[in-house]
Amino acid sequence: MEDYRYRQIEQQLLQQISSGTLSPGARLPSLRHVSARSRVAVSTVLQAYAALECKGVIESRPRSGFFVRRDVQELPPPPRTPRPLLRPHTINRSQLISAVLETVGDQELLPLGINCPSEELLPYRELAKVAARLSRENPKRLVGYLPVEGSLELRRQLSLRAAQAGLDVRPEEIIITCGALEALHVAVRSLVRPGDNVLIQAPSYFCFQQLLENQGVRSIEIPSHPRHGVEPADVERALGRFDIRACIFTPNFNNPDGSLTPDSAKREIVALLAGRGIPLIEDDVAGDLHFGPTRPSVFKMYDEDGLVVLCSSFSKTLCPGYRIGWIMPGRFYREAYEVKATTNVCSATPTQENVALYLREGRYDRHLRVLRRKLQEQMRAIQLHVSRTFPDGTRVSRPEGGGVLWVELPRGVDSVELMYRARAEGISIAPGTIFSTQDRFAGHVRLNSGNLWSDGLARGIERLGSLVGDMFSAGGA
Amino acid sequence: MEDYRYRQIEQQLLQQISSGTLSPGARLPSLRHVSARSRVAVSTVLQAYAALECKGVIESRPRSGFFVRRDVQELPPPPRTPRPLLRPHTINRSQLISAVLETVGDQELLPLGINCPSEELLPYRELAKVAARLSRENPKRLVGYLPVEGSLELRRQLSLRAAQAGLDVRPEEIIITCGALEALHVAVRSLVRPGDNVLIQAPSYFCFQQLLENQGVRSIEIPSHPRHGVEPADVERALGRFDIRACIFTPNFNNPDGSLTPDSAKREIVALLAGRGIPLIEDDVAGDLHFGPTRPSVFKMYDEDGLVVLCSSFSKTLCPGYRIGWIMPGRFYREAYEVKATTNVCSATPTQENVALYLREGRYDRHLRVLRRKLQEQMRAIQLHVSRTFPDGTRVSRPEGGGVLWVELPRGVDSVELMYRARAEGISIAPGTIFSTQDRFAGHVRLNSGNLWSDGLARGIERLGSLVGDMFSAGGA
Repeated sequence: MEDYRYRQIEQQLLQQISSGTLSPGARLPSLRHVSARSRVAVSTVLQAYAALECKGVIESRPRSGFFVRRDVQELPPPPRTPRPLLRPHTINRSQLISAVLETVGDQELLPLGINCPSEELLPYRELAKVAARLSRENPKRLVGYLPVEGSLELRRQLSLRAAQAGLDVRPEEIIITCGALEALHVAVRSLVRPGDNVLIQAPSYFCFQQLLENQGVRSIEIPSHPRHGVEPADVERALGRFDIRACIFTPNFNNPDGSLTPDSAKREIVALLAGRGIPLIEDDVAGDLHFGPTRPSVFKMYDEDGLVVLCSSFSKTLCPGYRIGWIMPGRFYREAYEVKATTNVCSATPTQENVALYLREGRYDRHLRVLRRKLQEQMRAIQLHVSRTFPDGTRVSRPEGGGVLWVELPRGVDSVELMYRARAEGISIAPGTIFSTQDRFAGHVRLNSGNLWSDGLARGIERLGSLVGDMFSAGGA
Repeated sequence: MEDYRYRQIEQQLLQQISSGTLSPGARLPSLRHVSARSRVAVSTVLQAYAALECKGVIESRPRSGFFVRRDVQELPPPPRTPRPLLRPHTINRSQLISAVLETVGDQELLPLGINCPSEELLPYRELAKVAARLSRENPKRLVGYLPVEGSLELRRQLSLRAAQAGLDVRPEEIIITCGALEALHVAVRSLVRPGDNVLIQAPSYFCFQQLLENQGVRSIEIPSHPRHGVEPADVERALGRFDIRACIFTPNFNNPDGSLTPDSAKREIVALLAGRGIPLIEDDVAGDLHFGPTRPSVFKMYDEDGLVVLCSSFSKTLCPGYRIGWIMPGRFYREAYEVKATTNVCSATPTQENVALYLREGRYDRHLRVLRRKLQEQMRAIQLHVSRTFPDGTRVSRPEGGGVLWVELPRGVDSVELMYRARAEGISIAPGTIFSTQDRFAGHVRLNSGNLWSDGLARGIERLGSLVGDMFSAGGA
């Protein structure tokens, strides 16, 4: 029995060492500690440690205890989280989306599949300086909770920025969320019940669909016009045919097609919905990334009834990893407050205060000007390179802002198959299939233009072009 | 028309100044900027600015622009988020819970209504040092996304801590969440569909109930024994009578009653559920806060089928405001991953890496030892003070760990009425009513023992005691 126990403890420790939980040089827990936890005699634990020492895995140091040997070489590297390379013919849309989400934060892939500016384009040094200052000046405040609705200073800054863009929203009409996706999540759970119909544009951000499915909500798609986004006539037609509980639209540089719904159409759509008392959830994450001289308006500017719920974040412009977004829920404040509170109480204090102070110092607009120019240059470079290296028949979007390109592949080339082939070569892309519940975009891919132009990026796009070329020739043969 | 426009701009600016969005000394947006945004002539904006200057609200500085005067005195202070003092007879449970949640982060209340250690008890200086080091050494990494499942280093540290407590969970079996409540949220959305029955103990943390209601799930309550928590016989009986989809239990120092489900009962309950294939969602946020020498076990230690989903966080022990929790979803990893991804993609990078490095430096256990001792002392002091200052007939729980006391008021005293009276005197409490869907705990209150003992705290409890005394006499008269 005791023999069995010591081997069990030895195996547990070996597992922790090989998984990297106990890294080379780490101190092992004391004999007494392991004995108390595992409810075995100290001598049994010592037996396990001795066995590991014999195997050259750990070493004892006088008066210090046992340590993992620094020269442990024969052990395998710590495992990466499994990223199954699922084959296209066996998976559903939801698994496909997971496969795309799994590339978020993966440092080993050329990140053409995400929608996020490269860290190089973000003011990380300034943010770090502000963080250091906050840690120095008021460390105590940073560990405590903020109210459910978030930092007052951050909400004041957001109110001020909204006012500068022509939108009158007071700090107490804003709730801070963990990114824009959480804002959307809060909006959907505040407004919609299982079985309801929600109107969305297609293509649109794949997480909307997944969020709706997950809530048991039916999505009804109207086309997103490649340049003009949502058309009022389409909205009106859908309202006539279906019992719509709410809409979710991305008027400014829609992800993935980059379309921009004109101001006049925004006004018209808000009026259409107001007449029927239907709420409109607006995603404005890319609104600040306009290449032209003026920021496009938002639906909420035309909202006189509190029916527009604006969702946005700093994830495409300042600090994706901080997870700072917000919701301006209009007349649905109470509902949104309750959903936020029961989802995760409130968002993190240090990151909220960090952004609040950064904004207060007034450097954000200067950063945005530089970011917009670079994103535009990078987008242009990718457009040109795609047109040079992809086969004839490829079409590329011409967005007036945002950070993604929407590429239509030559007829017959399947974007999911392309995703797997590209992944095998260290390149992530987002296949068009996931941007709609219908199969209309199987021949599209979305490319991230948030990466600094480089030889590596150029080679990656070239490689993609050859893969598409191969698939096109094979399909045409 | 132009006259109307300039007054409108003037009013908007005044509103921003009085709401604190533009604080004293702040620079106003440039004339050209406002002109472009509001689509009016520069001269119209200048007219508005001149009017504000005449009123002594703003001042122009040569070559710098317009600024809010620092001596603006006549303006009202910036508004606080409205905290309606709703009267008990008009509100429902959900509004009552909102009223309690609104006290989170409110610096002006004596926080007896929350469940959270005072910042004074937390190692905020050490955490700030780690934060400063991270900002210095790798500022770039902190602005980027982490993978959906969270920081690998943090998950390694959690895996190591689990191993030390006798639980074998690998880093790739853990997903980081925004606090334990989000872990619970992810668990519920992964396992349960609208219309399902979920078994919970009563009393239990009010957010469980609200989360279940919000998801359209029916909660079935079994009693939480004041000392022994969940009893296997009660679980068995409920399983015989209802079609149960999942259970949510807090075995270690249940919030609010402080009960501790014994190890033998845990083992029995896991076996009961495993026999029927029913998942068990376990909340272990207070498990590290044991006053006795050893940490109590968790359900998950007895789980051989991957049916136990463990949820926990650092919010009761280290850094509530960082919003760092985790879920160990067992065989439901895929479902949990998808829910987390569609809720808010991933948790914040800086706070995750901050805690990971703090844990890696090995100071957490020492902190926990001090924290446990202080929480025990504080709890003892409150128990004694309640027994001295509350009327006869009051009963107080005797938890062996955790950070809350459960007080049964003398017969006839209503906890919701007490909450409103206490709030009017600057004291927050959590009324028993919210800890169950049934009205069994209307005569209980939960008190936070996470505050350092102080004269102010003593006076607050004394004041509560007199309020209860008054209500008791009035009720008895």
